[in-house]
Amino acid sequence: VISKNQIKFLHSLLLKKNRLKHQKVILEGQRLIEESMRAGANIEYLCLTENFKNKISSNNLLNQIESYKISNSDLKKVTDTKVSQGIIALVNTKKYHKMNFDSIQNNNFVVLDGIQDPGNMGTILRTCIWFGIDSIILTSNCCDPFNLKCIRSGVGAHFYFKNIIIAKSNLVYDYLIEKKYDILVADLNGNNISNYNKKNNWALILGSEPHGISDTFKNLFKITIPKIGKIESLNVSVAAGIILNEIIDK
Amino acid sequence: VISKNQIKFLHSLLLKKNRLKHQKVILEGQRLIEESMRAGANIEYLCLTENFKNKISSNNLLNQIESYKISNSDLKKVTDTKVSQGIIALVNTKKYHKMNFDSIQNNNFVVLDGIQDPGNMGTILRTCIWFGIDSIILTSNCCDPFNLKCIRSGVGAHFYFKNIIIAKSNLVYDYLIEKKYDILVADLNGNNISNYNKKNNWALILGSEPHGISDTFKNLFKITIPKIGKIESLNVSVAAGIILNEIIDK
Repeated sequence: VISKNQIKFLHSLLLKKNRLKHQKVILEGQRLIEESMRAGANIEYLCLTENFKNKISSNNLLNQIESYKISNSDLKKVTDTKVSQGIIALVNTKKYHKMNFDSIQNNNFVVLDGIQDPGNMGTILRTCIWFGIDSIILTSNCCDPFNLKCIRSGVGAHFYFKNIIIAKSNLVYDYLIEKKYDILVADLNGNNISNYNKKNNWALILGSEPHGISDTFKNLFKITIPKIGKIESLNVSVAAGIILNEIIDK
Repeated sequence: VISKNQIKFLHSLLLKKNRLKHQKVILEGQRLIEESMRAGANIEYLCLTENFKNKISSNNLLNQIESYKISNSDLKKVTDTKVSQGIIALVNTKKYHKMNFDSIQNNNFVVLDGIQDPGNMGTILRTCIWFGIDSIILTSNCCDPFNLKCIRSGVGAHFYFKNIIIAKSNLVYDYLIEKKYDILVADLNGNNISNYNKKNNWALILGSEPHGISDTFKNLFKITIPKIGKIESLNVSVAAGIILNEIIDK
């Protein structure tokens, strides 16, 4: 059985400052945990309810990891979902927190500029991994990528990344210029993305839906997805998917 | 000031059965309401908090509609969001509820097969309108398209539709075959969507993430977005965007 102290610790991870301090997060639900295991996530242990434990078969992947029993009421304390499946995992995220750009090593990558919606962020991370993009830079005004909602919508994508870098916009800007990246800023008024011809490695910059692109990136090369209908804009994670599908080398 | 009875009525619209019975829904927030007005939504009236009323300028679009004052506590009763902007609108949705397929009239359209997640559904509706697709069929096991979350993620898209048809899968199947549509079922194992050559009008069928395509549509022509990375799947609304971008006549 999981100890009272450990419950207290897990509960503290609901706050961003504690996730950053300890570089640990909680994953919830079987599908997410299994996908994260396949991705090579560093899972320290599982907590299972009695009910869940009785349901999993003896040859399940989950049995490879140390596990503790947890009561339904304690489980509710440490997560923010209303209906729980009866399983959580504690993951060490240390290897994903990179502080500088060296590890990108001239690969194509995505920059999220002030994206605050964790659902959109998680969906974009998932799409990046689908298309083989395993480096991402988040400007410092983005939401925490290890926020529970973001992890949920990423469905394990986080743990396939080589680099999840949080950095100030002006440092990102300097890096892009210095390394001569093809810079593509997604915008409602830009050049048709289908006409892009790759000259160098590219960096795709996506702004937040309500606020758009920040001043730092405003004067760079803009690309757009041609609109046929009348609605003002596309969801940013959908736009990310369409653009990546157009610019990825297939 | 809005009456107690009216508050009671607005509150009742939190339930699907009442939304269907009265064919009315509540919109929340300035951006959503303005976009819906531009889309031609039939807005019966607005409810504004004192605070919000003082903030809007005299030449604002919103002033064209009949409005009532509402207290902050009453506003909380009739919506499901924690933080409210101070404005809601009551919309009549009668014209969108179509019961048969006649109104599609040989146009391209999208079929959502058992999609239960309102955020995904709303995002797909938004993407359809961006690409000029204004007919959609939802199989009867989908969530309610006029669910608050779905409307929120649609950001007004709902009201640009000519047809939002809810129908049983087998009737949809019969219609597609009878009308000789090019049927494209999005699936993880299918033909590369980039190779699709349009012969007739198309219908794109999208299944739910956890359950996939239902048996009714399982033996139809399958298309896929080629995967480069390792993650199992894409978010369904992202997949919808990528596929629509590939098959739309631009």
